[in-house]
Amino acid sequence: MGVLDRITGPRDLRDLTDAELDELAAEIRDFLVRKVSRTGGHLGPNLGVVELTLALHRVFDSPRDRIVFDTGHQSYVHKIVTGRAAGFDQLRQEGGLSGYPSQAESDHDIVENSHASTSLSYADGLAKAYTVRGEDRHVAAVIGDGALTGGMAWEALNNIAADGATSDRRLVIVVNDNGRSYTPTVGGLANHLTTLRTSPRYEQVLDLVKKRLNGVRGVGPAVYDALHAMKKGMKDALAPQGLFEDLGLKYVGPIDGHDRTAVEQALTQAKKFNGPVIVHVMTRKGFGYDPAEQHEADQFHGPGPFNIETGEENPKGQIWTDVFADEIVQIGAERQDLVAITAAMMHPVGLHKFAARFPARTFDVGIAEQHATTSAAGLAMGGLHPVVAVYATFLNRAFDQVLLDVALHRCGVTFVLDRSGVTGDDGASHNGMWDMSILQVVPGLRLAAPRDAARLRELLREAVQVDDAPTVVRFPKGPPSADVEAVGRAGGCDVLVRKGARDVLIVGIGSMAVTAVEVAERLVAQGIGVTVVDPRWVKPVDPALLDLAREHRLVVSVEDNGIVGGCGSVLLQTLNAARIETPVRLHGIPQEFLDHAKRGVILERIGLTAQTLARSIVEDVTALDAGESLLHVE
Amino acid sequence: MGVLDRITGPRDLRDLTDAELDELAAEIRDFLVRKVSRTGGHLGPNLGVVELTLALHRVFDSPRDRIVFDTGHQSYVHKIVTGRAAGFDQLRQEGGLSGYPSQAESDHDIVENSHASTSLSYADGLAKAYTVRGEDRHVAAVIGDGALTGGMAWEALNNIAADGATSDRRLVIVVNDNGRSYTPTVGGLANHLTTLRTSPRYEQVLDLVKKRLNGVRGVGPAVYDALHAMKKGMKDALAPQGLFEDLGLKYVGPIDGHDRTAVEQALTQAKKFNGPVIVHVMTRKGFGYDPAEQHEADQFHGPGPFNIETGEENPKGQIWTDVFADEIVQIGAERQDLVAITAAMMHPVGLHKFAARFPARTFDVGIAEQHATTSAAGLAMGGLHPVVAVYATFLNRAFDQVLLDVALHRCGVTFVLDRSGVTGDDGASHNGMWDMSILQVVPGLRLAAPRDAARLRELLREAVQVDDAPTVVRFPKGPPSADVEAVGRAGGCDVLVRKGARDVLIVGIGSMAVTAVEVAERLVAQGIGVTVVDPRWVKPVDPALLDLAREHRLVVSVEDNGIVGGCGSVLLQTLNAARIETPVRLHGIPQEFLDHAKRGVILERIGLTAQTLARSIVEDVTALDAGESLLHVE
Repeated sequence: MGVLDRITGPRDLRDLTDAELDELAAEIRDFLVRKVSRTGGHLGPNLGVVELTLALHRVFDSPRDRIVFDTGHQSYVHKIVTGRAAGFDQLRQEGGLSGYPSQAESDHDIVENSHASTSLSYADGLAKAYTVRGEDRHVAAVIGDGALTGGMAWEALNNIAADGATSDRRLVIVVNDNGRSYTPTVGGLANHLTTLRTSPRYEQVLDLVKKRLNGVRGVGPAVYDALHAMKKGMKDALAPQGLFEDLGLKYVGPIDGHDRTAVEQALTQAKKFNGPVIVHVMTRKGFGYDPAEQHEADQFHGPGPFNIETGEENPKGQIWTDVFADEIVQIGAERQDLVAITAAMMHPVGLHKFAARFPARTFDVGIAEQHATTSAAGLAMGGLHPVVAVYATFLNRAFDQVLLDVALHRCGVTFVLDRSGVTGDDGASHNGMWDMSILQVVPGLRLAAPRDAARLRELLREAVQVDDAPTVVRFPKGPPSADVEAVGRAGGCDVLVRKGARDVLIVGIGSMAVTAVEVAERLVAQGIGVTVVDPRWVKPVDPALLDLAREHRLVVSVEDNGIVGGCGSVLLQTLNAARIETPVRLHGIPQEFLDHAKRGVILERIGLTAQTLARSIVEDVTALDAGESLLHVE
Repeated sequence: MGVLDRITGPRDLRDLTDAELDELAAEIRDFLVRKVSRTGGHLGPNLGVVELTLALHRVFDSPRDRIVFDTGHQSYVHKIVTGRAAGFDQLRQEGGLSGYPSQAESDHDIVENSHASTSLSYADGLAKAYTVRGEDRHVAAVIGDGALTGGMAWEALNNIAADGATSDRRLVIVVNDNGRSYTPTVGGLANHLTTLRTSPRYEQVLDLVKKRLNGVRGVGPAVYDALHAMKKGMKDALAPQGLFEDLGLKYVGPIDGHDRTAVEQALTQAKKFNGPVIVHVMTRKGFGYDPAEQHEADQFHGPGPFNIETGEENPKGQIWTDVFADEIVQIGAERQDLVAITAAMMHPVGLHKFAARFPARTFDVGIAEQHATTSAAGLAMGGLHPVVAVYATFLNRAFDQVLLDVALHRCGVTFVLDRSGVTGDDGASHNGMWDMSILQVVPGLRLAAPRDAARLRELLREAVQVDDAPTVVRFPKGPPSADVEAVGRAGGCDVLVRKGARDVLIVGIGSMAVTAVEVAERLVAQGIGVTVVDPRWVKPVDPALLDLAREHRLVVSVEDNGIVGGCGSVLLQTLNAARIETPVRLHGIPQEFLDHAKRGVILERIGLTAQTLARSIVEDVTALDAGESLLHVE
């Protein structure tokens, strides 16, 4: 029986000896590698925070004290020590353990969202609340150096620093500095952290001054003291200011994050201080598992199932991202004015090949979607065509910038939204189910949803031709279906099926157009006439859809996006405004936060499969047949 | 004839003598005070940047070099020297001069958006573009210290700093430091800027060291040189680091922003430097006009028309903001757990009274809507009920945070959206026409739109009772109509009119419910039966509306929000899903960027007046009468 087996909660950590704690750390690493090799999941970040998490739970009294993890995929160790080790066999499976903190799982969890850079704001709010309520509770936020590049982390630091000077808020900010988020962290801040890591610390500097002055005849402790006093009086002139201290934040560090004792000492010191403190901890992503430590391109950030010995991920076929990755390189070779932007996710969004080929035309802005978007507007104003590649869910961070900085200024910027629709494994905050609703309100914006790899290539090329408005190309996670060729064209829409009478018009959005073809087969088998169209460009609504709608008895839209305000909703609104009275039935993702599970499992659960859709449409047609006199028929 | 009369463009500034330039600055101030006293507009910020703007246009060659103004309301002087002085009589009027930069007005204008903290991202993009294209052009961004608290400014600085070290991008960042945005700037950064302003500069410090060491027997220049060399080798230890320098940015300053010669020298020096430079300029908002300089609460940030002698604004009646301001104080007195948050707009959003009464429960987070929102989530998790008061358009900055940090975590946070709908004077980016569309997708969120002052008080009280979901209360700019009492109730909806047959159901959203009552009078006069309801809570859709819709021949929705995806759209979608076939007609703001003009003028232009709405509804009813057989009638 190992040490790990004896841990039922954080309090069990307190009585362990140093040797037992070292043993526990090793067991946890072994446990993580074994479990994640089977289920897939976030490995590297968690291997990096084993000692840090143990230290946090020994120094703070969770859940009375609150530990807030930024981008919660670094919370596996926290889950293990809070009694959830048994759940790892079902990690990220339907009904199993979430890959992120979950209030439903444990009182020790607080922030469930996976979007980066939020922890300091939560922590600031919690600490303020405890002050207002007069409660003596500590708040610890754990934030990576990568997440610090996000603007809202800055907004929070600015506030924490301001209030810290006049309050006794009990707030410890642990900067988990591993020099990378997905890829190495970029920017002035990262450089500065490096400086902090490599500089002689303040006391060492004073020592050096002292030694040098002592070496000069006639200069003794008196001069050293004079210098020291001067420092006190002019702290901004001579003190070894770091950025955090410039802001007025107490700073402790840098600390070796794999020296648990050192981390515990630093945290204990920080906890005792009245007011906010930064504890700068250096860790190595993937620490203790060679393949994870050595992978340059950071495949071990969040791999699928893999071979423990070799670190090789189980083979995957071509995914949507790969199609984009290759095509954008082609376009880049043809167009010198094309530039690419990623927000700290060069590999995951497939820009690594473009970056390798055109480094001077590739910009990794860090976790900073707002800057990605508005700097793209600037690039467009400067005569280039930027392609901003980002996960669909993360574009929410830049809604205002898309609207006012890009669209209002009529800038030709192309947004490529990967992982749109249901993504599944990573839970509610990773699903890209919002973009086709919120982007509908942006004047002038054009949005394309390719159904397959051929259409992705084609629509991407059409998108980058638009120079006076934002364009969006969105596609889901995983592999595309085999290409489905059109049997005809209506306006800009591809007609995929045209069989039998003009009973049902199915408007299939993006990958759902392929599902719609399967639906059509089932309907035709039941004697129902079907037309399936893929609008390709879903915003603005293609006028050809209005004519098609007039010709059919029923219009059905299917989309991998929230049902409220999505493509179907706008189609309904457009048909209504045009006074076309053909009944319209909308299918999409129910407007709720979805629990984690495999994408296929979720699509099944919410009824976005050919079988369920066909059943629903047959019911509608049956109803139509029964009450035909009330309906508008050509 | 004054100097100002001779200025047709920035080049005319180059040949002026110092005396003429001083005279010009005085003339511009006089001009600004006279013109803005008649039209209203942003006065204080522009009085503060007269010398700075003259210097910018003398040092940079606009429009070849690009000058980007953050929050463009500080661009009046820029407009004057780029040949648009004559336009100020029609400032912010329909067809007249915009209160913000406008590409349509001038080649010298580039960024039209009024949302803060964007300029550095634009400038970064522009500078990158010129580098990629090999063009030798400079970019100058002018950003206030207030706007630097916004997260995206940080994201930009982080990038500019990172790239600056290895590039020769010609980018000058002018920090226009007046210590305030609307109200004094808060946060660690503001404290740090104060430190920079008041610290002895680096060279002075070295001087001091030298003098002291020289006073010690036996220590001469050699020791000084040793120290100096040491500094070179350990720059982070001994150099007088400022935050900007920590990031790796060259820093020049602080400069007296009203000493034009000094500013010109600094800008010239910065322009010559290869790579990004910060020029820290200190100015005084309202400089040169006593009432503007002395107003503590910053009424002169953007006043309406005022008396030049006294500085008194022309009297205004009670506006929506005042109603909120008083009611939230009442609620605060009753509930100790209620806290209030503003993003640097204490007065404009009406939280000044609450702040005066409950300072420990009021948080001004700076221009930082993301942090306002997520720290509110933290406050709610800590057991309090936060009220975040913000202009409707600025909530777009925090969409992701509302969705994932507040709603996903089921936090009871109330957002009070002032200046929603058409605001008019300040142009496209100030209109609050997006919130009722994008917030529709947020699961669990409840949204109220009061029609009058009584309903604002009532709905605000209902909103702060909700402890497990975000609530939103949104109201327009200006004064509310006189209270309109209900004649009945249907579910949670107020029935305002019920006259004649069940012909038309008008669903009036927010202030449009009052307009709908006027519409009803016109319809009744023509023999059309009308029911007018105010849903009060517009999200979720009240089930009572479905029953009402079934009973009527036509449903009409009217809202002061973009037509796409708004309340009418969701009502249509809901009726459609419930298979209620009563025709629905939607009225709202056309989904386009609106040119600036008075609110009333715009509402007239877009047809949201009683007269136009009544005419449209009569047409619809006439069409119904003609084709009745096709329609669903009870």
